[in-house]
Amino acid sequence: MASRDPLHYPEEDRQFLEKYLPVRNQSKSDGLPFVTLTFATSLDSALSLAPGTQTALSGPQSKAMTHYLRSRHDAILVGVGTAVADNPSLNCRSEGVGGYGGEGLEGQPRPIVVDPHGRWQLGQNTKILNLAKEGRGKAPWVFTAERPKLPTLSALQRLGGTVFQLEPKEEGGSMLNWEEILRTVRETGIESVMIEGGGAVINSLLAPENAHLIDSVIITIAPTWLGQGGVSVSPPRPATETAQPSPVARLKDTTWRQLGPDGILCGYLN
Amino acid sequence: MASRDPLHYPEEDRQFLEKYLPVRNQSKSDGLPFVTLTFATSLDSALSLAPGTQTALSGPQSKAMTHYLRSRHDAILVGVGTAVADNPSLNCRSEGVGGYGGEGLEGQPRPIVVDPHGRWQLGQNTKILNLAKEGRGKAPWVFTAERPKLPTLSALQRLGGTVFQLEPKEEGGSMLNWEEILRTVRETGIESVMIEGGGAVINSLLAPENAHLIDSVIITIAPTWLGQGGVSVSPPRPATETAQPSPVARLKDTTWRQLGPDGILCGYLN
Ligand SMILES: NC(=O)c1ccc[n+]([C@@H]2O[C@H](COP(=O)([O-])OP(=O)(O)OC[C@H]3O[C@@H](n4cnc5c(N)ncnc54)[C@H](OP(=O)(O)O)[C@@H]3O)[C@@H](O)[C@H]2O)c1
Ligand SMILES: NC(=O)c1ccc[n+]([C@@H]2O[C@H](COP(=O)([O-])OP(=O)(O)OC[C@H]3O[C@@H](n4cnc5c(N)ncnc54)[C@H](OP(=O)(O)O)[C@@H]3O)[C@@H](O)[C@H]2O)c1
Repeated sequence: MASRDPLHYPEEDRQFLEKYLPVRNQSKSDGLPFVTLTFATSLDSALSLAPGTQTALSGPQSKAMTHYLRSRHDAILVGVGTAVADNPSLNCRSEGVGGYGGEGLEGQPRPIVVDPHGRWQLGQNTKILNLAKEGRGKAPWVFTAERPKLPTLSALQRLGGTVFQLEPKEEGGSMLNWEEILRTVRETGIESVMIEGGGAVINSLLAPENAHLIDSVIITIAPTWLGQGGVSVSPPRPATETAQPSPVARLKDTTWRQLGPDGILCGYLN
Repeated sequence: MASRDPLHYPEEDRQFLEKYLPVRNQSKSDGLPFVTLTFATSLDSALSLAPGTQTALSGPQSKAMTHYLRSRHDAILVGVGTAVADNPSLNCRSEGVGGYGGEGLEGQPRPIVVDPHGRWQLGQNTKILNLAKEGRGKAPWVFTAERPKLPTLSALQRLGGTVFQLEPKEEGGSMLNWEEILRTVRETGIESVMIEGGGAVINSLLAPENAHLIDSVIITIAPTWLGQGGVSVSPPRPATETAQPSPVARLKDTTWRQLGPDGILCGYLN
């Protein structure tokens, strides 16, 4: 299937997702967007075969689901590791959204890249930019800890994107505070964010200090073992951990569902 | 619930498992038993929080399923790491089997421990032995690479168990050949084996050189992340692997099903 073909996600497969999705036009009162953590892993919890590579894990049905989920969020967020490794499209190719049968950019989420050091190089082959030029996706926003480079900033601004510079969590550091990122996103009017990866981003959000920021989790599990050495989802244990470790996180009120060969797991972290 | 209480696994939850289970009185023609690989993991593919510890992962429904699966096999096999860490019961507590409402040892599988160096110490607290004494489970069989120690051998033989000594795969080594273990088991009349763990056993069976021995796979996935440092299922990649790694194994013809909070995945490796 050409990557321009709209993806169809059947009505009967939508209902089980509903209670894990943001409600349209119903914003949260805490100044934060509704955040859905969504990703695809292997049975051995790998996102990809190796750092810096992209691995097709989802079957066609769960891929169509992912695009349906994108249509239900105002923004999609990834870390710069993913932006560099995958050159992702980060748009929504569900049939009927803007650029895929719909009007304008209706239903297209805002792509957001967290790139503290300005590692993401924009060029002629950067898919997100090309899709924005073609009217098939919104221009990206970048969150950084350093003063944005002028060529990047103007390339983004020309298409309607921009760069947000935030203070690092620690003086001299580069890690940004997730709550501040999300609060800034909410202030622009965005009410829901789907965070898609990669490994570093997901593991830091599953950690106890950030898990309260996540409203729901939707995971696609492909029935494959990628084997030792992949980029994997497994949050670090708290440093205060004693000789008796305990589970880092658990999903509540889960729903499991089969889509093609894959399993879909939905749940809440809080 | 006391560990003596029989576990009930409802009729309506049995049907989806059927095509992944051995057919009674229908033995395979290749001199090998029907082998089901079954285990419970976290979302980050961990079997336990740390080596040498036992971690409760399955909810009550999937625990009852595991005991139902045991009733459908002639034997259960684990590695010595599990025998030492967990002091497991390895019997079947499904309602109606021998010792749990049924006659004699009807429906009780034979416990088998693969213990090349004779590391498994039998004592007064060894659950498998105590259950055998109480008529609630069969006495275990041990597969080893060394001459069995006399006290162990006689303790086992008194209860109806025994020790099988096999040649190691390599001269001076201690790894046994899985095919030889399974062929020996089949020669005793056992037609089906459920292999339950732990990590070293599962990873070696998922590796390309052994995967042909596995007839079906049934995994319970608990919706929790144990975090980095657990005993995990992730098979090693072949040593011949080049710069372009590929997935080590994939399940075919999968069925996913929800039991309580957990997901159950069934499939074939071959
Ligand atoms: N299967 C899937 O669903 C899926 C989805 C997405 C990605 N992936 C895969 O995941 C892999 C990439 O994962 P990854 O772990 O390498 O990269 P990543 O998580 O996409 O990005 C990590 C980088 O983002 C920055 N970052 C993350 N959190 C930050 C914070 N709080 N503050 C400031 N900066 C932050 C850091 O950049 P600096 O290093 O510059 O500090 C960090 O190294 C790729 O192989 C990709 O294919 C798979
Ligand atoms: N969640 C679950 O479903 C589940 C199920 C079972 C176990 N577990 C957990 O798994 C952990 C134990 O796993 P583990 O990896 O430490 O131990 P293991 O897989 O139970 O046993 C490994 C040992 O068995 C022997 N062995 C395995 N394959 C062999 C072969 N082909 N030939 C000869 N010997 C072989 C070796 O003994 P030597 O070292 O003596 O050579 C090896 O070290 C425990 O924490 C337990 O709780 C979880």
